[in-house]
Amino acid sequence: MTVTVHVPLGDRAYDILIGSGLVADAGRRIAEQFPGAACAVVTDETVAALHAETLERGLAAAGIRFARVTVPAGEQSKSWARLEAVCEAVLAARLERGDLVVALGGGVVGDLAGFAAAVVRRGMRFVQIPTTLLAQVDSSVGGKTGINSPHGKNLIGAFHQPSLVLADTGILDTLSPREFRAGYAEVAKYGLIDDPAFFAWLEQHHRGVFAGGPERAEAIRISCAAKAAVVVRDEREDGDRALLNLGHTFAHAFERITRYDGRRLVHGEAVAVGLACAFRFSTRLGLAPGQDASRVEGHLRTVGLPTAIRQIPGWDAGAEAILDAMAQDKKVSRGALTFILARGIGQSFIARGVEAAAVREFLDADLSLP
Amino acid sequence: MTVTVHVPLGDRAYDILIGSGLVADAGRRIAEQFPGAACAVVTDETVAALHAETLERGLAAAGIRFARVTVPAGEQSKSWARLEAVCEAVLAARLERGDLVVALGGGVVGDLAGFAAAVVRRGMRFVQIPTTLLAQVDSSVGGKTGINSPHGKNLIGAFHQPSLVLADTGILDTLSPREFRAGYAEVAKYGLIDDPAFFAWLEQHHRGVFAGGPERAEAIRISCAAKAAVVVRDEREDGDRALLNLGHTFAHAFERITRYDGRRLVHGEAVAVGLACAFRFSTRLGLAPGQDASRVEGHLRTVGLPTAIRQIPGWDAGAEAILDAMAQDKKVSRGALTFILARGIGQSFIARGVEAAAVREFLDADLSLP
Repeated sequence: MTVTVHVPLGDRAYDILIGSGLVADAGRRIAEQFPGAACAVVTDETVAALHAETLERGLAAAGIRFARVTVPAGEQSKSWARLEAVCEAVLAARLERGDLVVALGGGVVGDLAGFAAAVVRRGMRFVQIPTTLLAQVDSSVGGKTGINSPHGKNLIGAFHQPSLVLADTGILDTLSPREFRAGYAEVAKYGLIDDPAFFAWLEQHHRGVFAGGPERAEAIRISCAAKAAVVVRDEREDGDRALLNLGHTFAHAFERITRYDGRRLVHGEAVAVGLACAFRFSTRLGLAPGQDASRVEGHLRTVGLPTAIRQIPGWDAGAEAILDAMAQDKKVSRGALTFILARGIGQSFIARGVEAAAVREFLDADLSLP
Repeated sequence: MTVTVHVPLGDRAYDILIGSGLVADAGRRIAEQFPGAACAVVTDETVAALHAETLERGLAAAGIRFARVTVPAGEQSKSWARLEAVCEAVLAARLERGDLVVALGGGVVGDLAGFAAAVVRRGMRFVQIPTTLLAQVDSSVGGKTGINSPHGKNLIGAFHQPSLVLADTGILDTLSPREFRAGYAEVAKYGLIDDPAFFAWLEQHHRGVFAGGPERAEAIRISCAAKAAVVVRDEREDGDRALLNLGHTFAHAFERITRYDGRRLVHGEAVAVGLACAFRFSTRLGLAPGQDASRVEGHLRTVGLPTAIRQIPGWDAGAEAILDAMAQDKKVSRGALTFILARGIGQSFIARGVEAAAVREFLDADLSLP
């Protein structure tokens, strides 16, 4: 069964299809929606070995001309050199403006291929086939594309909406348990932002989500719909799209301090610790009840995610180092930061002008927890 | 005196200001329109020597923080390497999303800086200060930005509208007569596309345009307004924006064959020959009266522009080579090409399915003209 989440962005509107078997079925669907279009399939070495042939068999069966562009797996592919290589490969495949760039992979492939689609011939159409839970519920929806700069992550890029997103729930079984869990942190985030009923549902049904039952597709559907709703309200992140950053000011600092070393900490794990921190910080500021912070920690722990900074392998940084890392990520105006805080589960809000001193005090206390 | 052409593109609307002294006055105007914004001034070595200090004195006087980013003069700066260097320099100058990239230069600088503005932090605001007549009446208006690929010119880029265009008519006196004339070919083009009264006016007033009288600002105003009107109808070139390519299918082929060697042929000269060819071809096809083609040639010759292919220094290519060059530029479907043709001065139209055989026959005849 396939369910659809529609993203109503005017002339950039698109559908997110969620269900099992969508990689094999992609050729048929692409031929139907984009008759006559050729494809450049951008993927990475890991994903290519698992899923590229399934996809390409379907493209061939549907009579679609395609070329494969493979990049090394990992964050280091979000580089200028790799962007140039992908763009030139798309041109070498003689693709025109009406043709498609198809991203088959996780967030790195989606961000890189999407950015290439945004700039080759000043904008080609673009199909996301996200192969990780994280990419299915987060980066493949919303149109943010880009690469990293020596000055920071995602500092070069474009807003370029996909024309179609195919989230194949079946292929998530090829993920390691650690990778699946990491994506689950972003799923839980949507409940924590503004949907307490969804968070309660996850507390009840997380086993089915992990096991791959109908609950998995349902959790992905609700997550995509939640993200789509925010994106439709604020496509270019001028306003409340920032709510999606719940937990992320902390998370980005943790990732920066562990030098984006995925052996120590992957993004979703950083988000899990960040979500727990955001709720503990909200509690400390007297905004949220302590039992809500405990529920957040409890659920994340139940599924095997970390919730304390000290759980990050090899952690040795203090409050000041974390604050420094936050300052590099965000604009700091006169010693104040912007955080997403919460008045409770599902009651997050944008808090501007949070005093650095209050953050330091919280971090000092939090780091000394057992 | 400064006149304004407004480009009504909804939330991407902007003004083109035309008048003398605008480079010196830019700081004041930028401070007024973008209070608090810092600037990265992107320019090339030639223009920097002539105009950067004038601009920067005004920025400093208006209390604007700025950094200068200089690239080598010439088309070869529209490269991946230079794009990366400009983007990283903008980030190194600690510019945020609300700050400005200011392009001070001709078409190359405008295309490169505009593309950098489109992708740094997924889109910064962007001010065009075009310093050639060609850039003032053509590339600085309409939001096309980009770089070249080994696969062809302008194949990587973005549609990114400027927030303000300042066309300083006074600084055009620093152009060589050849460079000014080349820009004039694009001015004449606007009359030939759909404004016969403007073409007649140019026949009367071209001396004033070249001499720098009030006629110059008027010709630039009418040209910018003409281009803006087309861009507003068809921002992303899905339809009749193609009319702006009058003369350009020929011109691009001539430039390709002379290997973009500006010593032999600059873009505007290629356009002049291309405009004359488009009218001679239209006459040969029985579409336009012969006297209109003669008037076009007569006026271009009067201002010192070439009108015959044989006038291109060192020309030795035949009809077949020109057709080959055209085929690389445009999509050729089953031996047919798309041209902008004319039923007379100011009566151009998009002609699809022009037979390659008809083009070959025209070129054979045209090349054998004395």
